[in-house]
Amino acid sequence: MSTADVSTPSPILRFSTRRDWAARQVIGYLMQQAVENPRCLSLAAGLVDEASLPIDETREAVARLFADPQKSRTALQYGTTPGAEAVRKVFLRHLARLEDRPLESLGVSADRMVLTTGSQQLLSIVGEVLLDPGDICIVGGPTYFVFLGTLHGLGAEIVTIPTDEHGMRMDLLEEELARIDDEGRLDRVKLIYLVDYYANPSGTSLSTERRREVVAIARRWSRAHRIFILEDAAYRELRYDGPALPSVWSFDDAKDTVILAQTFSKSFSPGLRTGFGVLPEPLLKPVCDRKSNEDFGSSNFNQNLIATVIDAGLYAPHVEQVCDAYRNKRDAMVAAAERHFADIPGASWITPQGGLYVWMTLPDSIDTSFEGPLFARATRIDEVMYVPGDLCFGGDPGDRPRNHMRLSFGVLAPEKIDEGMRRLANAVRTVSGG
Amino acid sequence: MSTADVSTPSPILRFSTRRDWAARQVIGYLMQQAVENPRCLSLAAGLVDEASLPIDETREAVARLFADPQKSRTALQYGTTPGAEAVRKVFLRHLARLEDRPLESLGVSADRMVLTTGSQQLLSIVGEVLLDPGDICIVGGPTYFVFLGTLHGLGAEIVTIPTDEHGMRMDLLEEELARIDDEGRLDRVKLIYLVDYYANPSGTSLSTERRREVVAIARRWSRAHRIFILEDAAYRELRYDGPALPSVWSFDDAKDTVILAQTFSKSFSPGLRTGFGVLPEPLLKPVCDRKSNEDFGSSNFNQNLIATVIDAGLYAPHVEQVCDAYRNKRDAMVAAAERHFADIPGASWITPQGGLYVWMTLPDSIDTSFEGPLFARATRIDEVMYVPGDLCFGGDPGDRPRNHMRLSFGVLAPEKIDEGMRRLANAVRTVSGG
Repeated sequence: MSTADVSTPSPILRFSTRRDWAARQVIGYLMQQAVENPRCLSLAAGLVDEASLPIDETREAVARLFADPQKSRTALQYGTTPGAEAVRKVFLRHLARLEDRPLESLGVSADRMVLTTGSQQLLSIVGEVLLDPGDICIVGGPTYFVFLGTLHGLGAEIVTIPTDEHGMRMDLLEEELARIDDEGRLDRVKLIYLVDYYANPSGTSLSTERRREVVAIARRWSRAHRIFILEDAAYRELRYDGPALPSVWSFDDAKDTVILAQTFSKSFSPGLRTGFGVLPEPLLKPVCDRKSNEDFGSSNFNQNLIATVIDAGLYAPHVEQVCDAYRNKRDAMVAAAERHFADIPGASWITPQGGLYVWMTLPDSIDTSFEGPLFARATRIDEVMYVPGDLCFGGDPGDRPRNHMRLSFGVLAPEKIDEGMRRLANAVRTVSGG
Repeated sequence: MSTADVSTPSPILRFSTRRDWAARQVIGYLMQQAVENPRCLSLAAGLVDEASLPIDETREAVARLFADPQKSRTALQYGTTPGAEAVRKVFLRHLARLEDRPLESLGVSADRMVLTTGSQQLLSIVGEVLLDPGDICIVGGPTYFVFLGTLHGLGAEIVTIPTDEHGMRMDLLEEELARIDDEGRLDRVKLIYLVDYYANPSGTSLSTERRREVVAIARRWSRAHRIFILEDAAYRELRYDGPALPSVWSFDDAKDTVILAQTFSKSFSPGLRTGFGVLPEPLLKPVCDRKSNEDFGSSNFNQNLIATVIDAGLYAPHVEQVCDAYRNKRDAMVAAAERHFADIPGASWITPQGGLYVWMTLPDSIDTSFEGPLFARATRIDEVMYVPGDLCFGGDPGDRPRNHMRLSFGVLAPEKIDEGMRRLANAVRTVSGG
């Protein structure tokens, strides 16, 4: 016992290896920037439009739910790890409407669904059950930066495939798989991650042809083992123009390759943190086992609440309203880009048909990163904030393009969007010496 | 490209190593047993009393929250990863009331709090950020079986310290640490896990003296690095008799050793899945980084709802009601044990002063495990279900005691509890040939 008494006054701290990997998540730093620069107009935040949050719909759904004592008790009690079957059935009907197909022809039952804390939890759990350190996840460049943090947290290797206005380049995906195979590393490829509707951050959608193609590619290269596709359809319902695209999942006839991740965060309320996944059968138990370890079930109350919203016919009209509001904001941001950036040489941007983001490209000479002069100038002097584009690329920081910005029209009112874009253009002109 | 076309029709599946570890979680199997034996009276489920679920309180809190448009929008919008500061402040005041201390003398601010999906998510995340495969977590025997599954999922080594009616034996903890140190493995010990209020499954609480002692022991043995204590206070508020015990956390003067995990699941509603932790400062960033990767925040709506319940004075009277209901049920179960088990030689049980569980010991000759004859007989013929006690012990299955049962009085009405206990006693008598 005597040795034990020779205690160090302030022992050192030893975390897990994975903790060190997780330290690369940047969303906390971004939020801190927002807190430290409260006067900034935020073109950075991925928050949703406050004015169109569903107060009346939620109030009405709570009233309906609580009008039935048994339903209220069920909602306030524990659910099961994948979520209550009754709720999953409502969500599956919702999915059938989005797919524009009869429920019976979807090819799956509600048994294939798992309800999660937003769709982010599904992305994280899929990573957990598939990826060992050093395993490869293929992503688009650019892609959703929070998922890059999740992949870093797993110690996964991130392989980036360039994108164009139709999403991930399938020819380059095929080339990259061949290259990895040549290196004898095909057995490390486990997952292809696609943000395929009005992507965060690029605003582009995967073309229908490529949706079909990516399933075929994943199957063709599943020689060593099954390569899964993780389809992140978070922005699917925020459609302002153009056709409703079929999901990649709908092209997976055998329903054994694509994991579909959706959420009610963008279309209804992020505060309810309710998402769902549709999974290939062999992934169900691994995902539920993992979820049991993490929280053994997301909020049963919120899941029942959203099912009530849908059943009561309150959901579709709300989504229409939300889309009207965002369409106006999208138009305001694109008009503001024309107004304030048209005369900046080398500046270009993509007009999205949905989602929350305009992806802007500046001349190579302008470094948009946290460390560059533009971010400091914009946040501290011009008082406007954006998400540096380099955060949305995998790979070594030195190899990432640093001349992009993700601009969100989610939070600000249209007139503030114009003012934010004016300020940002001013910052760009200043640092580029213009 | 030609090689790629030689595809295997049904590729094999390759999961992560951690997925295989996570497959040992038993809660799914237990739930499946309940589904497959629907006529069983459940003395197994950890669900809460349905009749006392807070329908009126929740309805009232929703009305109050939605009476203020700004508050409603805030609640329906994204929160931050650790939870909104305003909510954390309400929860800290709640904690001060439980500790029976003025807020100012708690020794921490709301900055030390992280809000989670139930307390389970905090347990899981603390494991994630501290434990590498092979690292040691010390637990009581018996302990909370879901956390054992979480530890298995991390590849952690579980070291079990015997407990008595006052909780974990501190003399044996000290001896075990000395033994591990002698083996040169003290640097693998990262965490001591305590379910210290009306424990799941034993029903016992850690004595005040041992609460003080365990903090001193953790400090004394923090030679290689800080050994943290994870205090799982899930059942703290379900107190039916006896004094309100101070938390282990309250004895951690420097507030650098104890992680306090609490939840509103048992005291208010599990369907809202809202818990909170109070953490030593150096754990805040690791826990929030990990949480960012998992879900970047639990339901902001539910957190605001519970804060409203507390602020409106609806919480304390509800907890009183809940405790009254459970006290009756506890009494019903103990009376039923006297009535039906008193004449079974070697049967004994602990009368808990709170919580949801009666821990029953049977003669060594009776195997209560899933594989034993009692479980089959009880579920299929006598139609009553319990949780086999061996699930609540770490270590090799062969080394665990198999003559215990966890009996829950949470779900059933008092008369059903008596009937369930009668059936169970009948099953025990049958398999013991009595």
